[in-house]
Amino acid sequence: MLHAAVMLCGCGRSDGSEITESVCTLIHLARHGVAYSCFAPVGLQRHVVDHLTGREESGAGVGSREMMREAARITRGNMASLAELDVREFDMLVLPGGFGAAKNLCSFAFDGVNMTVREDVQRTIAAFYAAKKPMGFICIAPIIAAKVLGTKATVNGRAGPGLMLTLGVDNFETNPAAAAANMFGNTHRNCATREAVTDSVNRVVTTPAYMDDAATPHDVYVGIGKCVDEVVAMARGGVGAGV
Amino acid sequence: MLHAAVMLCGCGRSDGSEITESVCTLIHLARHGVAYSCFAPVGLQRHVVDHLTGREESGAGVGSREMMREAARITRGNMASLAELDVREFDMLVLPGGFGAAKNLCSFAFDGVNMTVREDVQRTIAAFYAAKKPMGFICIAPIIAAKVLGTKATVNGRAGPGLMLTLGVDNFETNPAAAAANMFGNTHRNCATREAVTDSVNRVVTTPAYMDDAATPHDVYVGIGKCVDEVVAMARGGVGAGV
Repeated sequence: MLHAAVMLCGCGRSDGSEITESVCTLIHLARHGVAYSCFAPVGLQRHVVDHLTGREESGAGVGSREMMREAARITRGNMASLAELDVREFDMLVLPGGFGAAKNLCSFAFDGVNMTVREDVQRTIAAFYAAKKPMGFICIAPIIAAKVLGTKATVNGRAGPGLMLTLGVDNFETNPAAAAANMFGNTHRNCATREAVTDSVNRVVTTPAYMDDAATPHDVYVGIGKCVDEVVAMARGGVGAGV
Repeated sequence: MLHAAVMLCGCGRSDGSEITESVCTLIHLARHGVAYSCFAPVGLQRHVVDHLTGREESGAGVGSREMMREAARITRGNMASLAELDVREFDMLVLPGGFGAAKNLCSFAFDGVNMTVREDVQRTIAAFYAAKKPMGFICIAPIIAAKVLGTKATVNGRAGPGLMLTLGVDNFETNPAAAAANMFGNTHRNCATREAVTDSVNRVVTTPAYMDDAATPHDVYVGIGKCVDEVVAMARGGVGAGV
């Protein structure tokens, strides 16, 4: 049985992993009969956001929230520390999106093109890449792959490969993520919510999901389905399949 | 366009609405082209549970959580107070499960067969029933319908109708919810996770979802799909369809 690692970082679109995207990932893995283990970094979410108002919560009675503990709400307790993720035990990696991916796993939400990626996240992605194990990145999460694997990055001592990927529709004005991905040395492709972009050379699949705020949950379900289909097909094919 | 009301009560299987069940409900409504509005009672969740350990969180730094504000994490902000729900604006009602349904919307988790139902929840269900608008109840949520509409209840001044419903598999030993539903004057039917039970006379559809802890997210997706299919078909058919 194939085994997927899923990387999360909280529970909620504005401060953690996007919930619908995370659930769709697990549904589609289960649909393929793929087992999965979920991981999150240990530590506090950068923010706690009131999802009714969109404002950061603060003050007495709010409390802090840990990435791993909150993400366990989505996965019904299937959850371990990212530090325990051993790439040798898994056939593929999937990262759902949500602002948490851009706040907790990297600093894109704050620093834009000057973003940094958490060291443990960077190491995990580079290890799956080096092992030629396929990866799926959803919504804003491809910006992390773009930073770690773009030609301007150094992967295991060599220049990164540069990816073909999508972060939705780049209209040259209002999608700074797509512009940043290109700047890091990747090739952005426009993509509809119900579709996915496959880089079969680098074994990376991306889908926009809620990069389009007007998408319905069913659009997101269909697009993530195509992303997971491709990742699983590559993992089934073994090293080099799809290239 | 048909319009569904969805009733939630937090975000997480152990203290709020079960996340996968809630997301699947919204995906399937969207798949049918049904618009939806989500509602939750105003007020604090009864508990805040650490979903890594299953233990209640307490003490400094934990904070309290409001049903409506937390549920807005699942729905990306589509959320209003249950007090604002006007049955005349909707064609159907769906209630996902999770322990929250048994802790926040009624007291089944604490009181068993002596359970009570929040007055606003009871009024809402009775209003949809009186208007002959179809309702779907998922996982443990059918216990609420069982209490409000069983023959031992009084609905709009008359004895309730008694429902045919499912709360998973009743093995006469370990499913106190099924036993309680029968005791309230309903007829429990065993049902697999990927199926749903339709009471076409009372226009109530139920599906077990995570009543089976071993279910996969895809099993839950399929079962809730059948539940929503039936509810939408009844709503499309108008009053009396499916009877």
